[in-house]
Amino acid sequence: MKLKKIAEFLGGKLVGNGEIEIYRVASVQDSEKGDITFIENRESIPDSTNINASCIIVSNDFSIETSNNLIRVNNPKLAFAKIAEVLHPPKIRETIIHKSAVIADNARLEKDIFIGAFCCVGEKSEIGEGTQLRAGAKVGDNVKIGKNCVLHPNVFIEDNSEIGDSVILHSGVVIGGDGYGYVRDTERHVKFPQIGKVIIENNVEIGANTCVDRGALGNTKIGEGTKIDNLVQIAHNVKIGKRVVIASQTGISGSVTIEDDCVIAGQVGFADHTVIKKGAIIGAKSAVFPGKIVREGMWAGIPVQPMNKYKRLNAHINSIPRIKEDLKKLQKLIDELENK
Amino acid sequence: MKLKKIAEFLGGKLVGNGEIEIYRVASVQDSEKGDITFIENRESIPDSTNINASCIIVSNDFSIETSNNLIRVNNPKLAFAKIAEVLHPPKIRETIIHKSAVIADNARLEKDIFIGAFCCVGEKSEIGEGTQLRAGAKVGDNVKIGKNCVLHPNVFIEDNSEIGDSVILHSGVVIGGDGYGYVRDTERHVKFPQIGKVIIENNVEIGANTCVDRGALGNTKIGEGTKIDNLVQIAHNVKIGKRVVIASQTGISGSVTIEDDCVIAGQVGFADHTVIKKGAIIGAKSAVFPGKIVREGMWAGIPVQPMNKYKRLNAHINSIPRIKEDLKKLQKLIDELENK
Amino acid sequence: MKLKKIAEFLGGKLVGNGEIEIYRVASVQDSEKGDITFIENRESIPDSTNINASCIIVSNDFSIETSNNLIRVNNPKLAFAKIAEVLHPPKIRETIIHKSAVIADNARLEKDIFIGAFCCVGEKSEIGEGTQLRAGAKVGDNVKIGKNCVLHPNVFIEDNSEIGDSVILHSGVVIGGDGYGYVRDTERHVKFPQIGKVIIENNVEIGANTCVDRGALGNTKIGEGTKIDNLVQIAHNVKIGKRVVIASQTGISGSVTIEDDCVIAGQVGFADHTVIKKGAIIGAKSAVFPGKIVREGMWAGIPVQPMNKYKRLNAHINSIPRIKEDLKKLQKLIDELENK
Repeated sequence: MKLKKIAEFLGGKLVGNGEIEIYRVASVQDSEKGDITFIENRESIPDSTNINASCIIVSNDFSIETSNNLIRVNNPKLAFAKIAEVLHPPKIRETIIHKSAVIADNARLEKDIFIGAFCCVGEKSEIGEGTQLRAGAKVGDNVKIGKNCVLHPNVFIEDNSEIGDSVILHSGVVIGGDGYGYVRDTERHVKFPQIGKVIIENNVEIGANTCVDRGALGNTKIGEGTKIDNLVQIAHNVKIGKRVVIASQTGISGSVTIEDDCVIAGQVGFADHTVIKKGAIIGAKSAVFPGKIVREGMWAGIPVQPMNKYKRLNAHINSIPRIKEDLKKLQKLIDELENK
Repeated sequence: MKLKKIAEFLGGKLVGNGEIEIYRVASVQDSEKGDITFIENRESIPDSTNINASCIIVSNDFSIETSNNLIRVNNPKLAFAKIAEVLHPPKIRETIIHKSAVIADNARLEKDIFIGAFCCVGEKSEIGEGTQLRAGAKVGDNVKIGKNCVLHPNVFIEDNSEIGDSVILHSGVVIGGDGYGYVRDTERHVKFPQIGKVIIENNVEIGANTCVDRGALGNTKIGEGTKIDNLVQIAHNVKIGKRVVIASQTGISGSVTIEDDCVIAGQVGFADHTVIKKGAIIGAKSAVFPGKIVREGMWAGIPVQPMNKYKRLNAHINSIPRIKEDLKKLQKLIDELENK
Repeated sequence: MKLKKIAEFLGGKLVGNGEIEIYRVASVQDSEKGDITFIENRESIPDSTNINASCIIVSNDFSIETSNNLIRVNNPKLAFAKIAEVLHPPKIRETIIHKSAVIADNARLEKDIFIGAFCCVGEKSEIGEGTQLRAGAKVGDNVKIGKNCVLHPNVFIEDNSEIGDSVILHSGVVIGGDGYGYVRDTERHVKFPQIGKVIIENNVEIGANTCVDRGALGNTKIGEGTKIDNLVQIAHNVKIGKRVVIASQTGISGSVTIEDDCVIAGQVGFADHTVIKKGAIIGAKSAVFPGKIVREGMWAGIPVQPMNKYKRLNAHINSIPRIKEDLKKLQKLIDELENK
């Protein structure tokens, strides 16, 4: 792709030779001729004289002495990600249904579909145009999958799930398994009915070995553009809004609501029925205890509290030794007074 | 199912028309004609006038003004779960061995078995009557699986494991992988032998992508009626009793003992060789540190402590700022006294 | 194996009859005739008179009254693990490529390879001599796998990954999935390019359902002899050194560096870009917060701190009630003084 076309695509200002060809993106350190890279800030580049990239994306106000070509934009990292989407499109697999795949007669497959070896598609399920099922991906009965999705190897989607367009499910993801709900009887746990479904909207991406349980009576729902990392647990009847990000190993209990644009770090735990309001940001390893409603802002701790309070609290805890010393001093002063 | 038969099955008192037909269970909010629902308590239903269900299960002493049919029982949620088991039985799959399945000649398959596409059953393994292996489930050599089990897609059971009757293993479960044990030599970690097996008793249910490691020298054991959620880690030689419940992402280290009827919340961690006595309840995100024996009662915290103590401790931590103020006041009082 | 040969192999001192045959290893409690066992310390054996093993490995200075044969060594547990490697070698599977396996024409398979049912090997990938792919293991395109590896059932290795010799990947492991990186645009999260690879050196073992993400721009790397437990998350661009051990459910964020010989307990979390120096030991459920460099020594807590400090801190927290009492006493003393 010619550099001038890239600058145009990014809406950036080109400084240098627009006629050269760019083949791939690379990090500043590893970049070579033909690469485009980016510098996010001063710290990210120790010595600008040795950058081999054919072009560097920098911010409008970034001062740099270099003979490299530059593209100046507002947000270099975002521009870099956008041009990477163009230069490194997802792997296109040829339109084919592997002869080993087991497809129900009444399943409906749209055109330009890839179905790899050892895949299954169940009764009355629908696979949208351009969607790829990689080797060993298994789709149950009555499942709807939209256009241009990628199911990586060994993904499993249980009966009745609904998956939107451009959804990416990484290897080992399980969608629609039974939720974890029992009612204690005298001598056994009776399974509470797990007969709802999972609805995943467009542009959702879900990391490897993450589990999304079906609803018990209602549905579990993941909103448009939400991105979920590996090994995350999403229990029955959870409602996740749009553009939420959830990092690895976080666990979300039954019937939790996470509204739009929340940011959830790794290893966080949510007690059931808690509510996370739009735009809340929750730090790693936090715990949202039962009954909690978490409002917009930054939160951390076990249990979660506003980030400022959490930091003060940690400082307070660290000050206990000094408190003890102060107590001793006061005791001594009082003793002296008494002796007078 | 006729309503009068349902009332009879539940041992409840019918108020209304016993001749109507009930087809499915539903939540209060989403229920329609032909549904049966339940009300657990006053809070779970804001306005009883709009419930469309043909029958509501309520407690004996629950007062409600409604034209709906009612069944009165001691425990409405339990009754609801029990009738759901009848109205929504697990999916029955036809007796078939898919032509793609790879079954050892000397494996023993009882009658009424379902074996889906891309399944494997190894040498000398036994599959009990009515058991279902869904697509891609893989059973190693010399494995015993009882009656009426369901192995969901992509489950793997390692050689020599023993699985009881009516066991449900959700998608991606790994039973019998090597435990994590090494002995440090000068220049490498030498694998401690992992040659024991896994024994799972009747009526156990294990959630998606959970791992149960084989014993190192002895066995790993999960007792009858125990229910385990998704993404749980159960290490080598762990002994879990009967009717234990373990929520998602909890990790149980080697040789831990969890006795009957314990309740373990999510993201709890157990150090190896710890012992959890019968009936203990452990709150989410707690940690049981090495050497700990946890007795009956409620526990929480890192490290775990009795719930009351844990709550007081949190209150104490939150009171540090006031302690500091009190210290300042005392200092001031002393200063004043000294000046006198 | 004759006992005298075992003693010789272990470099130990034989006390007893070297001509007897040993068939397997066993724990002290369960051992029978023909078994070899070990005693690590006094506590591990309540009553030495009932050990049925044909030989017990003990330390050089361990005093025991027994008629069993003994082998005396420096480190009995290590010796036991070493002889177990000999008596219980990993299961050898016959050299075969199952007829259901799907192997690219231009893949390169060395000799003595086992490829089970429903396996895939992609374009231009290489499988080294003696390596086993168990049922359902899937290898993408352009992957290099060394000699004598074992890929357990349903392992998936993404395109371009490089796996050394004698690597063991347990069931459900995902190597080379996309890392979790996005750049926020006004209305969506734009995927940061995830185009690096995963490099795993010789003698690494990775537990069931663990995920190792590919590098974003550079590579993710796991050093020689490192052992990783089940359900661990290793994000993009993480660098793990040699002989590191990482217990279950630990999560390692992007670009973290863990140097040689570190020991990481279970459920630990690492914020991105943190650095763990050679030989550091980190306790279970700890959190390494952003910007932290963890030096050699023992660490624990959220956030991690030196183990001694962490223990003192916990003691301090437990002393808050006494601080409050002391405050009250001082207040009372001051009141008395004032009244005078």
